Amino acid sequence: MEYPALARESLDRVAASKPLIHQITNVVVTNDSANLTLAFGALPVMAYAPQEAAEMAAISQALVLNIGTLSEEEIAAMLLAGKAAGDKGIPIILDPVGAGATAFRTESALRLLRELPITVLRGNRGEIGALVGSGEVRGVEATGSEDPREVATAARDAFGITVAVTGATDVVAGQETTYLVNNGSPLLAGITGSGCMATATIGIFATAGSDPALQTALGLATYGLAAERAAQGDPGPGTFRARLLDEVAALHSEGTSGVNIVESRES
Amino acid sequence: MEYPALARESLDRVAASKPLIHQITNVVVTNDSANLTLAFGALPVMAYAPQEAAEMAAISQALVLNIGTLSEEEIAAMLLAGKAAGDKGIPIILDPVGAGATAFRTESALRLLRELPITVLRGNRGEIGALVGSGEVRGVEATGSEDPREVATAARDAFGITVAVTGATDVVAGQETTYLVNNGSPLLAGITGSGCMATATIGIFATAGSDPALQTALGLATYGLAAERAAQGDPGPGTFRARLLDEVAALHSEGTSGVNIVESRES
Amino acid sequence: MEYPALARESLDRVAASKPLIHQITNVVVTNDSANLTLAFGALPVMAYAPQEAAEMAAISQALVLNIGTLSEEEIAAMLLAGKAAGDKGIPIILDPVGAGATAFRTESALRLLRELPITVLRGNRGEIGALVGSGEVRGVEATGSEDPREVATAARDAFGITVAVTGATDVVAGQETTYLVNNGSPLLAGITGSGCMATATIGIFATAGSDPALQTALGLATYGLAAERAAQGDPGPGTFRARLLDEVAALHSEGTSGVNIVESRES
Repeated sequence: MEYPALARESLDRVAASKPLIHQITNVVVTNDSANLTLAFGALPVMAYAPQEAAEMAAISQALVLNIGTLSEEEIAAMLLAGKAAGDKGIPIILDPVGAGATAFRTESALRLLRELPITVLRGNRGEIGALVGSGEVRGVEATGSEDPREVATAARDAFGITVAVTGATDVVAGQETTYLVNNGSPLLAGITGSGCMATATIGIFATAGSDPALQTALGLATYGLAAERAAQGDPGPGTFRARLLDEVAALHSEGTSGVNIVESRES
Repeated sequence: MEYPALARESLDRVAASKPLIHQITNVVVTNDSANLTLAFGALPVMAYAPQEAAEMAAISQALVLNIGTLSEEEIAAMLLAGKAAGDKGIPIILDPVGAGATAFRTESALRLLRELPITVLRGNRGEIGALVGSGEVRGVEATGSEDPREVATAARDAFGITVAVTGATDVVAGQETTYLVNNGSPLLAGITGSGCMATATIGIFATAGSDPALQTALGLATYGLAAERAAQGDPGPGTFRARLLDEVAALHSEGTSGVNIVESRES
Repeated sequence: MEYPALARESLDRVAASKPLIHQITNVVVTNDSANLTLAFGALPVMAYAPQEAAEMAAISQALVLNIGTLSEEEIAAMLLAGKAAGDKGIPIILDPVGAGATAFRTESALRLLRELPITVLRGNRGEIGALVGSGEVRGVEATGSEDPREVATAARDAFGITVAVTGATDVVAGQETTYLVNNGSPLLAGITGSGCMATATIGIFATAGSDPALQTALGLATYGLAAERAAQGDPGPGTFRARLLDEVAALHSEGTSGVNIVESRES
């Protein structure tokens, strides 16, 4: 099947199953992530307390961990939720926001990768690079000039999991296949949490198929396609942010024919 | 007086008195709740620290407690604020977000109901049902097929307070009168925090009249009327969310003639 | 040079240097502040954990502290970040949200002023007044009838730093010069966090020039000018909020010719 049809199929599965997406995420993007999840037809739940993190994860269909405004207590909740998710075989997506900017973020991300059966790791090339010893980050933005494909491959080999490095072209490095996703818009860089929302999207799509790398590529492409549509007419960031949710919700009626994924088997 | 006129009267009282609405709420909806409060002409204040919760509640005109992203420290703050509010006779509104999904949420909501003089309890039928031993919840969404009217009545009898179960039709069970509120829009289910904003609205309207059940019905109907207007033309969720605030702020000029409440005395 | 040209110059410097603005702010406004920072062409980073606050501040170009939803742990993080910023000579902007409403807020703001080399203090006349023994506050809103100019001057003399008291006219009291900023819109009072965003703007502009009072006046005027443009046609608060970000991002193309600052040397 072609990628646009596969993306459509995943969207339909999400709409039919209304998966519960447990998100332990940062305070900057929590509202946007919840609204994005609803726009995809899935159900968000934000539950951060150690007292309930494992119980909530165990009734969910995916777990999204995001270290954007991390605290010690949140790490404890992530470990509890992640272990429960692992026991149930639920996919876990990790977004190491700002890894490389401070030792606390880098070390916390590495600890989560070590102690939990993470399914997909997503970040910009600076963040992912920092986890494999390269990468330059200022705050939560990638700087430097690493090749995103090399960064993704190095992280995949280091951690043995699917790794998505997002940017102008998103690179998804799976165990056998690497996907290049050409959807998206420069306007995404003008709003906060656009990367975090990409990570939430991966969590949603991970519930709709069994191949993590393929589902990650389909999710990023579909989200990027909605962003392209929202960017038409070059709106300002406040308008773009509202339209992005509109266009995600409109994917069912507007279709996925613009999904642009290029497969690239390792040579 | 007819309900639309009563709703108008409450709006006018809020605009004249600018009540301070102290909200201890979840991180997902805090911005939306604050903006909604301003749109109604009231003043929001979010104060979560145990060191100040009681002092802030004591200078407020209503206290809104929402357990959507609860922590141990937040429960402590809620108990302190609630006791101060009770001592001053200030109405307290409780939103047991996600009760039934985890034991921590169910037990925390029951503890707040037991230890504080809650005035109005508002949730969906799953959440309220969970507090009286029925109810099905996935994350923070109601599933199952309970009759919302039976759930509201059971909770009213169990806790001896006004209970609002919101959904396609909102049911407000007071001690003597039950109100059915027919305002609202299916689009509300497409944005996060629409229930939490309904709860904040109840807190605002509770400052404008002495009958908790009537004020709750008026608040839900007025909020639902603004949602109906915001839903015209079937916008996407990002646009609807912005318009909802616009329409709440426009209630003074647009009026309340669409308020649709049906009274139903117990037989 | 005239003020509009100076404002333009600061905007251009920000766009060229992309300063990292470390913000320890409240949960109500964190998303809006981050989006505003991006709209100005700067990079936001929200980092609240004591484990990383100093490290993040040390790589930033400005530090913005906002006590809107303060906790004990956040005070600890602010002190660590503030000391690191002071060691590096990075400007620190303090927003004492709700000072005067509770003892915890007033005392925490005073402690930060005492222990950290704050560069600019910004609040409404109630909040700033409370820090110098006058001022009336309800929640986070100024009431009472103090003259904002007297409040600003008193606080400048008490703390020996630049003080901005924002309102219908913003007053910026520097060591030698007082600026009156006549930009802005009444619609700003209809959205939450408009004051917090003004504070973030000051942090951004503080990276683009060495005179704190002048940079504060330029920042407030530029932000107010964007608000004036966003207010055209008198939109509701939900639409205004989105347009405000749009207009900030459009400042580069639309220009700063409406910047309206009046200098007033002490007589």
